Amino acid sequence: MATYVTPPDTTIVPQRQRNGRGETIRFGVIGYGYWGPNVVRNLDQIQTVDLAGVCDMSALARERVQKAHPHVEVMSDPGQLLTSPEVDAIAVVTPVWTHFELAKAALENGKHVFVEKPFASNSAQAQELIELAEKKNLKIMVDHTFLFTGAVRKIRQLLDENILGNLYYYDSTRVNLGLFQHDVNVIWDLAPHDLSIMDHLIQVRPEAIVATGQSHLNGHEDVAFITLYFPDKVIAHVNVNWLSPVKMRTTLIGGEKKMLVWNDLTTDEQLRVYDKGVSITSREGVYNLLVNYRSGDMWAPKLERAEALTRELTYFVECITKDEIPINDGKAGLRVVKMLEASTKSIRQKGALVYL
Amino acid sequence: MATYVTPPDTTIVPQRQRNGRGETIRFGVIGYGYWGPNVVRNLDQIQTVDLAGVCDMSALARERVQKAHPHVEVMSDPGQLLTSPEVDAIAVVTPVWTHFELAKAALENGKHVFVEKPFASNSAQAQELIELAEKKNLKIMVDHTFLFTGAVRKIRQLLDENILGNLYYYDSTRVNLGLFQHDVNVIWDLAPHDLSIMDHLIQVRPEAIVATGQSHLNGHEDVAFITLYFPDKVIAHVNVNWLSPVKMRTTLIGGEKKMLVWNDLTTDEQLRVYDKGVSITSREGVYNLLVNYRSGDMWAPKLERAEALTRELTYFVECITKDEIPINDGKAGLRVVKMLEASTKSIRQKGALVYL
Amino acid sequence: MATYVTPPDTTIVPQRQRNGRGETIRFGVIGYGYWGPNVVRNLDQIQTVDLAGVCDMSALARERVQKAHPHVEVMSDPGQLLTSPEVDAIAVVTPVWTHFELAKAALENGKHVFVEKPFASNSAQAQELIELAEKKNLKIMVDHTFLFTGAVRKIRQLLDENILGNLYYYDSTRVNLGLFQHDVNVIWDLAPHDLSIMDHLIQVRPEAIVATGQSHLNGHEDVAFITLYFPDKVIAHVNVNWLSPVKMRTTLIGGEKKMLVWNDLTTDEQLRVYDKGVSITSREGVYNLLVNYRSGDMWAPKLERAEALTRELTYFVECITKDEIPINDGKAGLRVVKMLEASTKSIRQKGALVYL
Amino acid sequence: MATYVTPPDTTIVPQRQRNGRGETIRFGVIGYGYWGPNVVRNLDQIQTVDLAGVCDMSALARERVQKAHPHVEVMSDPGQLLTSPEVDAIAVVTPVWTHFELAKAALENGKHVFVEKPFASNSAQAQELIELAEKKNLKIMVDHTFLFTGAVRKIRQLLDENILGNLYYYDSTRVNLGLFQHDVNVIWDLAPHDLSIMDHLIQVRPEAIVATGQSHLNGHEDVAFITLYFPDKVIAHVNVNWLSPVKMRTTLIGGEKKMLVWNDLTTDEQLRVYDKGVSITSREGVYNLLVNYRSGDMWAPKLERAEALTRELTYFVECITKDEIPINDGKAGLRVVKMLEASTKSIRQKGALVYL
Repeated sequence: MATYVTPPDTTIVPQRQRNGRGETIRFGVIGYGYWGPNVVRNLDQIQTVDLAGVCDMSALARERVQKAHPHVEVMSDPGQLLTSPEVDAIAVVTPVWTHFELAKAALENGKHVFVEKPFASNSAQAQELIELAEKKNLKIMVDHTFLFTGAVRKIRQLLDENILGNLYYYDSTRVNLGLFQHDVNVIWDLAPHDLSIMDHLIQVRPEAIVATGQSHLNGHEDVAFITLYFPDKVIAHVNVNWLSPVKMRTTLIGGEKKMLVWNDLTTDEQLRVYDKGVSITSREGVYNLLVNYRSGDMWAPKLERAEALTRELTYFVECITKDEIPINDGKAGLRVVKMLEASTKSIRQKGALVYL
Repeated sequence: MATYVTPPDTTIVPQRQRNGRGETIRFGVIGYGYWGPNVVRNLDQIQTVDLAGVCDMSALARERVQKAHPHVEVMSDPGQLLTSPEVDAIAVVTPVWTHFELAKAALENGKHVFVEKPFASNSAQAQELIELAEKKNLKIMVDHTFLFTGAVRKIRQLLDENILGNLYYYDSTRVNLGLFQHDVNVIWDLAPHDLSIMDHLIQVRPEAIVATGQSHLNGHEDVAFITLYFPDKVIAHVNVNWLSPVKMRTTLIGGEKKMLVWNDLTTDEQLRVYDKGVSITSREGVYNLLVNYRSGDMWAPKLERAEALTRELTYFVECITKDEIPINDGKAGLRVVKMLEASTKSIRQKGALVYL
Repeated sequence: MATYVTPPDTTIVPQRQRNGRGETIRFGVIGYGYWGPNVVRNLDQIQTVDLAGVCDMSALARERVQKAHPHVEVMSDPGQLLTSPEVDAIAVVTPVWTHFELAKAALENGKHVFVEKPFASNSAQAQELIELAEKKNLKIMVDHTFLFTGAVRKIRQLLDENILGNLYYYDSTRVNLGLFQHDVNVIWDLAPHDLSIMDHLIQVRPEAIVATGQSHLNGHEDVAFITLYFPDKVIAHVNVNWLSPVKMRTTLIGGEKKMLVWNDLTTDEQLRVYDKGVSITSREGVYNLLVNYRSGDMWAPKLERAEALTRELTYFVECITKDEIPINDGKAGLRVVKMLEASTKSIRQKGALVYL
Repeated sequence: MATYVTPPDTTIVPQRQRNGRGETIRFGVIGYGYWGPNVVRNLDQIQTVDLAGVCDMSALARERVQKAHPHVEVMSDPGQLLTSPEVDAIAVVTPVWTHFELAKAALENGKHVFVEKPFASNSAQAQELIELAEKKNLKIMVDHTFLFTGAVRKIRQLLDENILGNLYYYDSTRVNLGLFQHDVNVIWDLAPHDLSIMDHLIQVRPEAIVATGQSHLNGHEDVAFITLYFPDKVIAHVNVNWLSPVKMRTTLIGGEKKMLVWNDLTTDEQLRVYDKGVSITSREGVYNLLVNYRSGDMWAPKLERAEALTRELTYFVECITKDEIPINDGKAGLRVVKMLEASTKSIRQKGALVYL
């Protein structure tokens, strides 16, 4: 029976030997645009994977596949992969509005599915896919790549070991110039990263969302701010912006015992853990309230360097082989989609409180 | 007759000679806590000012005055300054809940008033003070110090000369560890800086506010996020936090033609102006929408180095002497207080949209 | 007749059409270790190049070639490429002690030569190769890649347009942890970058060198400091270190009119040009010497983004096709080798002044 | 009997009570230029000090003393302090060429002496002062302020506890625009900081010095590079420059076990200790030399925040009262002067090796 497990620190060096049963998972990839090449390159290097084919409607994209991976079959019709008896799993790396149809077809044809984030265009679609997979006993993994970075894995460890103490807030800034999407706003484009990380790190579920923002150029919000209310006074905030002159990927996490800053753009010392904090020790009348500040060492733990996507895809193969539920399964994908939906609903009403 | 003027680039080197009429403005200062010493030190150096006395209820604070300024009279009773015929103007540098009473008494006694930000505890108080000053033909200046920094003056110039083009957004992050206030939340403590800067830079007035946040320690919000909706799709956002392990004072301003980053914590190159932008040139069907990115040079203009408070207080003396209305008059103070009130109202309702 | 030219801003987008005469240059590459893969990848993408084969003695290296470039012939014997009538030019991307023999064989067989830096193990070897190439009317290009970066090209432009004014100094820091070489010291490993850049930027030739340093681990200096004396009071300094906990690639260039900082490790704004300077306006007695400081704007010009090696190799093909002398020809390579020799001689005598 | 001691972590909060014997040290200060105000301000705040007077030849300087310290006596004739029976110790905060005469007069009159760095214009002067002080049983302290910073104290602790392991190198960069001195070159101006820090941190004494540099503007070298050879393969390097567009104060220290970077310009995390290193484990033939790189966590220890000069002057008073030899005594000052002399001798001969 499948069990819900934390992803092990999987051996990411390609295994020279097949697993005991000699099984390989045969993958078809649909979509070779911005992110697809990374998925294909990684699948091509995992020893327990056979790359059965790559599909893209664009002839130019197919040319790029052949140039980079001359031994891999390319095609323009996804049906060829979706229905092939030679394919065990489908990676859907296409625009979000196509996820549902492709993932559904894959599941119906008995294939496991790896879907680009966000999982689906709405929660009804996500729910339907989850149910279909359960019925068919197939795996869904939503590509919440960041969960597999050295930084997020270390933060999760710091939380698990209660090094940060009770959580106060999670505050992420994810801004840059473009790339403008024409089918979704900046929240659907950039916030899934933050929302999936939060979903993974924060043990309680958000209760309500407030989102504000503005569209300036093409009718989709290009600047947006999301607040998430969690139980136990935990609050989260995400600042996403397609119109920033500088790129920033900075997350502050405040805990009762320690606080940290994660800067995803630096090569070294991405994570800085501060022995800093505040405590209130006495309240004899409002003016005798004593605030104590603690300021000690800073510590930048060494992080695992392996490529997150390699670790994630290897883990997906293991989940399939061992019949385990991925941490980033369809339900995790659904939770993120629900947050995106709530954000959209809130932003349309200029920050209305939307309960989840 | 008084006229509303942009503050001239006042000569901040102390004038060795009194102005033509030989006048000096005699100042009394009430409050010598965190900020008072800066006000006193500056007033003591301005040649057209006589420092009539400094009042603080704390004996320790009075000792500090005498140590630093042995020639200045100190006292514990503000009434002594408020009613003295030897005093022309009062600087109120006390906690916000005392501003109204002290400023009102000063005005009633015919003194001009320089009031620490935020102007007052609520807009009714602010309104009453404005009316009283008008009736008495006295000046009010609210200490929006940042308006007099080299950075804000340069940004204003870039906007006035239309170098940034139409404004898209204003996004400020103002976070650090403490100092916790026991009478106000983090918005009333830190956001007046941002709100007064916006009020000065953005030519249109905000229409509505959404504020979210959470209190973790002493019953006042220590983490808060404010969104301000302006006309013409301009949007502003302020992130204030007393629980951040690192200090940040970063403002992004996005315009149609150029964008800038202002980092108030660096010594050099605080302001970086980027020749970056996005434009939409064609929309033949949603999928042919062409987004053009422009990325050119970055430019860090040299900024005036003079202390902002020196420039501000010198300007206040000039406004009194020349009977001119300060840019940071009581009305500017009132506008900021209204934004703070709206933020408080919104945050209490978890992000309700509050119209201004 | 060949002419010495500044490299044109070559079209680096692969040309879809062959040049007018339909010629292509057929390249053989010898060496597929650390840098070879970049040379092969680039040559494979240049339309006017045919990649005739890649040679490496290591079976593992040959496997990597085949994996990355399945259509390219691989071999273990360099003679196969060196003597092939199907090869016009040889890229020598091997350890420095093998350069002479391979390049000599290539030239003797009538091939143009692209040689990794440093050009040769000593100046006699370099001189012999230069003479051989001249006799055979063949081109030598030494891989001084940095000359083709956007940063160096922009600095050269600033110098050519006299924007920096007379040069005062050039000061480079190039430190990191490892990679230790077992056949050369840190000067021969890292300083060729700086020496070749200086050779390109500074219009006068260095007169003398002082080098100091120390070896701690394997008998080769791992920390070293080089001073170069140029005419006209220009001085240069290079700090190279294999034992630094942090990676630094920072160059300061001081001119009479402007000064600049080049940080090769940042993604954006690598080059910062400061309107800063010092002048002495009067010297009425030593104590009346007036030093005037000028401090104005900072400006970070946009740099060309194209990969330097692509531009360099494209330029090499053009030099061959158009019979032009590359800026980084054998003579430039020889000048760098002479500086390295002088540095070695100086460091052995603990900083003895060695004339060039 | 006096003993040579490491400075205790002196209580830097001004002591409210005199020491047991009720003694105070009565100080006269000569020189109120750039650094004098800091010495006066600190002496004025130390409870075991009486500030007997401040002397400066400049009327403007004397005015500044009176403005800042109205209760302190000022004078233009140093003889008044040097011969006063009411003075126990003299602080000499004047240009270097006046140190000898003033310090000598102070010692001859039975006063302890605190002298600005560098101690004297040459080693003969320094030697004479040391002998005079010994004969008179008086204390000399040379103002090597940096020894009392939190950063240097922590580095010393890391070395004492053998956390860094055997030292490999010390490499300091101390550059900025100006301030040009008219009586000394950039080495005498800036390098005393680094040389005194090295003298304190490195337990062995340098054997030889090589200095190179160039003067561009006023006849004194404005750019200089110093290498110091120590026993046991320890090497040190100092890069000083008055013509840099940016200010840098960065020191790298490489040890066998750990390495650190000290950036004196940041407010937080000035010291970063890296668990990084290199080791050679095997040498079966030159090509089988195995270099092992270690890269672990980074750690930024919290540093003491107290002002270094406060700690230093408090320590001087203690050395006088308890008859102890300061770590920065005349002999330490002499060692630094000898290094400066050797640097001057070397730079005049373009990097000649000068033994110490």
